Amino acid sequence: MSILIKNVILNNQKKDILIEENKIKQIDNEINSSVEEVIDCKEKRAILPGFVNCHTHLAMTLFRGFADDLTFNEWLFNKIIPAEEKLTNEDIYFGSKLALIEMIKSGTTFLNEMYFLKGLSGSIKAIEEMGLRAVVGITVDDANFEKVKDFKIPQKTELIDFSIAPHAIYTASEKVLKWVKEVSDKNNMLIHMHLSETQGEVQECIEKHGKRPINYLNDLGFLNERCVFAHSIWLNNEELEILKEKNCSLVYNPCSNMKLASGVFRFDDVRNKGINICLGTDGTASNNNLDMIEEMKIGALLQKINDINPVSAKAEDVLKAATENGAKALQKKTGKVEEGYLADLIFIDLEKTYFNPGFNLTSDLVYSANSECITDVICNGKLVMRGKRIDGEEEVYKKIKEISRKF
Amino acid sequence: MSILIKNVILNNQKKDILIEENKIKQIDNEINSSVEEVIDCKEKRAILPGFVNCHTHLAMTLFRGFADDLTFNEWLFNKIIPAEEKLTNEDIYFGSKLALIEMIKSGTTFLNEMYFLKGLSGSIKAIEEMGLRAVVGITVDDANFEKVKDFKIPQKTELIDFSIAPHAIYTASEKVLKWVKEVSDKNNMLIHMHLSETQGEVQECIEKHGKRPINYLNDLGFLNERCVFAHSIWLNNEELEILKEKNCSLVYNPCSNMKLASGVFRFDDVRNKGINICLGTDGTASNNNLDMIEEMKIGALLQKINDINPVSAKAEDVLKAATENGAKALQKKTGKVEEGYLADLIFIDLEKTYFNPGFNLTSDLVYSANSECITDVICNGKLVMRGKRIDGEEEVYKKIKEISRKF
Repeated sequence: MSILIKNVILNNQKKDILIEENKIKQIDNEINSSVEEVIDCKEKRAILPGFVNCHTHLAMTLFRGFADDLTFNEWLFNKIIPAEEKLTNEDIYFGSKLALIEMIKSGTTFLNEMYFLKGLSGSIKAIEEMGLRAVVGITVDDANFEKVKDFKIPQKTELIDFSIAPHAIYTASEKVLKWVKEVSDKNNMLIHMHLSETQGEVQECIEKHGKRPINYLNDLGFLNERCVFAHSIWLNNEELEILKEKNCSLVYNPCSNMKLASGVFRFDDVRNKGINICLGTDGTASNNNLDMIEEMKIGALLQKINDINPVSAKAEDVLKAATENGAKALQKKTGKVEEGYLADLIFIDLEKTYFNPGFNLTSDLVYSANSECITDVICNGKLVMRGKRIDGEEEVYKKIKEISRKF
Repeated sequence: MSILIKNVILNNQKKDILIEENKIKQIDNEINSSVEEVIDCKEKRAILPGFVNCHTHLAMTLFRGFADDLTFNEWLFNKIIPAEEKLTNEDIYFGSKLALIEMIKSGTTFLNEMYFLKGLSGSIKAIEEMGLRAVVGITVDDANFEKVKDFKIPQKTELIDFSIAPHAIYTASEKVLKWVKEVSDKNNMLIHMHLSETQGEVQECIEKHGKRPINYLNDLGFLNERCVFAHSIWLNNEELEILKEKNCSLVYNPCSNMKLASGVFRFDDVRNKGINICLGTDGTASNNNLDMIEEMKIGALLQKINDINPVSAKAEDVLKAATENGAKALQKKTGKVEEGYLADLIFIDLEKTYFNPGFNLTSDLVYSANSECITDVICNGKLVMRGKRIDGEEEVYKKIKEISRKF
């Protein structure tokens, strides 16, 4: 597949972009090349890297709006967990499809997934069919450890890599974590884990292990540049120092952290320390969408009010967290519109009301826009959305409504 | 004008709605009536009252993205105020048009406006042309008092009422406030004012008057049910007690309060006290849009994280603040879809991805949706948006880009 994008706005300049196979081959003022498809943007659309959603649980779309405005225990133990017990692999396939449609429409091309092992083949199938790039977690905790130990990790594909994903330090004991580290080292796999999401979790770790979570993991020899930690809210300065030294990546999940009242990520402290900050939506049971544009705005605003400093978490920093920092954490050459990078790209309709007057596209995208401005999406060199339409979406919605009746 | 809306979803039920002149005449399971226009929603669209944006500065759309991620003083004194000095009445007309287009597209049908007196006729003209309902503030402070005193308040129209709008207690002295109160009493006019937005403002009031802002205003005999106070962040319990007793309305402006790091509105305390809470976007220089759906989500999430309580500011409460509470503050019979109410209505496309599975429309609207779901808007019995299109929007964008070059 080759695509020539004509007259598109890239960093405030009109450019042509040539895509060959799955990569950005050339960016120039004018390119003329014989290609399979030409997209002429007529200077009315801007191009950006697709968003990288660094922490999500796809099939939780099935629980959107199912349990809101409840206490954490009511939400989790009385509503979400009993419903999750009913999930089949097929449900997870359809729930993931719904999530992927939503992600494409809101400009995400790369995601870091973690959900039940019982639905692994369902999620993989959905991701392959929808054509997005993903790292899919092989989830492990004390409860399923014996099963996972003998589990054959599926073969990587062009679009899908696998991570090993211990749920959290309070559900995966030392024995499991040591095994995770071994598997990660042996297979060069990313580790995707919830970390220090609540104060209670940190307290429990101190009581059980006599130290804070990062010190505990560090003493296990667990930490390196393959670690991607979701939430990562309750970290002290010593822990930040260790995370920097070990080159771990942290994922900021503002909507979920606010909705569940978990706490506030230390964005500027983490950034100033030089730690890689990514952005994620978490699942739709605690958000309730997968919209990275909304996540950027809410993420930026939360930092300003929390720090009582309107200069905290600038638009350019949250946009970077939502794109290139995520790609760095997930170790793929994407997240930038540059020659040689993977062709994971989104088109922005500059004629939307909220792009006027148009002083600063980064600011307008973060603070003013909603995902309606995304018209077309390319992932791995292929168009996965054309003119806001995705094939087969109605059938997915119909199936989702059927499945939801059982919860 | 008469409109018959067929097969629309209202409170989870299929209904027909008959609009005659500017009111909701009848709501029933099936209505057959000879009308000028029939809108058949085929059970694929829901109907809601239009949003009531209770605090905004329309023409600040001209400064969207012009000055972000700056300290408050840098933002206000070095960027916004010098730019505002250059504004003409015509600029304010076009800036207001842009704002009104954005409001219609995001479902607002009623707004509480406050901006420069020099652009008053421009804003009025824009509002009349776009067909929205508004209360427009006659702004007054120490600097323009001599001029305002002799100003002839324009005649009310079917769509536009006028309020008297002292900027704030730190810019309008006692003499001005007493005059405001007199004019309000004499003409039965609403009072629209910024109040206790920053801690500094409260401190200054204590230093100058020996009391907190609400005590100061109460002692002036200023407070009654016609007072609509924007921001209203830094209030203590005694002040809340007085505001309740005097039946004042408070406007929560979460995005602006977060972006400028002003503070957090005491939503549940105010609500539990029985004070009327409205919602507003403020101007686009501190938001940066006029989207009430986004404002509801961010408003709900901010309360949960601030109170460390996921049950704070429930979806139904913020939706009420965004609709019927605003109508109550602005004293119009709108903000509800009920017989006898003004026909200010919005249509929601239930086929959007984020409305699946569809457990709870209120929750989905507040936590999942963006304003893309709004397809048609009726204000005062007339269609102001049909199928997401508004006549003449492109010319407004063109003019806005021209004007913006002078800042």
